[in-house]
Amino acid sequence: MAQAIKGVFSAITTPVGADGSVRLDLFEDHCRALLDEGCHGIALWGTTGEANSFSISERQALLEAMLGFGVRGDQILPGTSCCNVPEAIALTRHAVKLGVLGCVMLPPFYYKGVSDEGLFRFYASVIEGVSDSRLKIILYHIPQVSQIPLSHDLIERLITAFPNTVVGIKDSAGDLENMLAMVKRFPGFSVLVGADPLMLPVLQAGGAGCITATSNLRSDALRVVWDNWRDPGKADEVAAAQDQINAWRGLVSSYVQMATVKTLVAKKRGHDDWMNMRPPWVPLSEEDRNQVWAEMARLSV
Amino acid sequence: MAQAIKGVFSAITTPVGADGSVRLDLFEDHCRALLDEGCHGIALWGTTGEANSFSISERQALLEAMLGFGVRGDQILPGTSCCNVPEAIALTRHAVKLGVLGCVMLPPFYYKGVSDEGLFRFYASVIEGVSDSRLKIILYHIPQVSQIPLSHDLIERLITAFPNTVVGIKDSAGDLENMLAMVKRFPGFSVLVGADPLMLPVLQAGGAGCITATSNLRSDALRVVWDNWRDPGKADEVAAAQDQINAWRGLVSSYVQMATVKTLVAKKRGHDDWMNMRPPWVPLSEEDRNQVWAEMARLSV
Repeated sequence: MAQAIKGVFSAITTPVGADGSVRLDLFEDHCRALLDEGCHGIALWGTTGEANSFSISERQALLEAMLGFGVRGDQILPGTSCCNVPEAIALTRHAVKLGVLGCVMLPPFYYKGVSDEGLFRFYASVIEGVSDSRLKIILYHIPQVSQIPLSHDLIERLITAFPNTVVGIKDSAGDLENMLAMVKRFPGFSVLVGADPLMLPVLQAGGAGCITATSNLRSDALRVVWDNWRDPGKADEVAAAQDQINAWRGLVSSYVQMATVKTLVAKKRGHDDWMNMRPPWVPLSEEDRNQVWAEMARLSV
Repeated sequence: MAQAIKGVFSAITTPVGADGSVRLDLFEDHCRALLDEGCHGIALWGTTGEANSFSISERQALLEAMLGFGVRGDQILPGTSCCNVPEAIALTRHAVKLGVLGCVMLPPFYYKGVSDEGLFRFYASVIEGVSDSRLKIILYHIPQVSQIPLSHDLIERLITAFPNTVVGIKDSAGDLENMLAMVKRFPGFSVLVGADPLMLPVLQAGGAGCITATSNLRSDALRVVWDNWRDPGKADEVAAAQDQINAWRGLVSSYVQMATVKTLVAKKRGHDDWMNMRPPWVPLSEEDRNQVWAEMARLSV
């Protein structure tokens, strides 16, 4: 069974003005640049995109805007989940009708200690509520943020019940063993790396690609890995690209990650508004910002 | 400075049919019964009420329905927060315009490891967005679920910036020392118990009352404590009531708490639809349900 969704996808950040409203102009430029730099597509409204800091209508409007300025539906993987079923249905239905490649879906993340049965019912209720054969779901495993891990038994149950709909997972936990176990247990299921350093090892094991934050900065290097990892003659080039990815990821992780990505994108794209964030996030301090930019300059040599 | 909000408030559960839609008839009966049984008011859309499993429009509609069947605005403390500022403003503004007593507000709970500065900006953005002098906010500290504790320095900063708006806190962490420290540090601030066993000790220290789940079952006993705790001649009666509250709370906590409250309310109010839950929660198993009801019968003797 072929993987339904594969490639290098950017967990795109969302630029806002000082008042918190989306800076559409910066967003459009960044989308175009990411696709030029090598991304197969764009994962709109993920964790890095501050999805949960925006309203349902803002989330829908930005997806519509992307299509309006020419990104194709089959290049977009929007996050369409939220804690409640009716709004998750509304977001997902809206995205499917617009022809997106797939929808990345967090579990409901307010309540803790919920059962696999409850999580199954959540996803099943959304799938049945959307009721559209075009729907492709990428589950979203990011337990360090959501605090709701997705067990392999749950995933198996979802794949079994909805084989043409539940087609993949984004795993941001950074645990290689977990990803390798899923690749092995679920043939044809798209296991997408959320933690950049695992790109190469997971591809080598049969993974489907990545949805990562570092792609906002180094999608070129991720694409080098993607394009060449099977070619023994390019092993050095691939290893060097993965090393670059790891170095940038290391920089992002050395400061508050959410703000650091934006600080780096601000420098890369040449606009300070990139550093604005919606609460509860705040921009880096001036001191940290200058440190980040200095380290960025060293990495860019 | 007098406490702006005080009394026994029920963190009301939300009845739904098998299809997940709100059972307004059961809800109305339960509201009336709670007020008859001694509640000063009703805290709509809290954790026990599965608030985050309902859409914004469902949350607004049920508040309107309560007013429609005769609960007074000054008897209602709705939960009006969510993870993003614009929808938190919309929910809060709607509730304030309807004349509620106050709004109980969770911090944004998706992102973890956020700063006090970021949480301050969230609450400040909502308060400034609502921009209505009638707004009274009860902060909601429930770190075991939200994973976002509210520090005393944050609370102090909010009280200082918005002294007529940030008037209290619901503390569901179950840590007596934390509550006593807040009572001492913030004179006139309404510290409301979210963990029933602390009702009496927190009242004795200067607390303002409670917003608890057990009130769905034993608001009569909570009211006995509230009415009589200052009367030395009623110390035995008060202690017995607190013991009753603790026993019921113990029963609720012995099984999956969210489902157990509904299972007990189903028996108390005589309707099985009370046991339905929105995902990600599921009803208790038949075995657990029967155990819960057997223990309930013993406690009710």
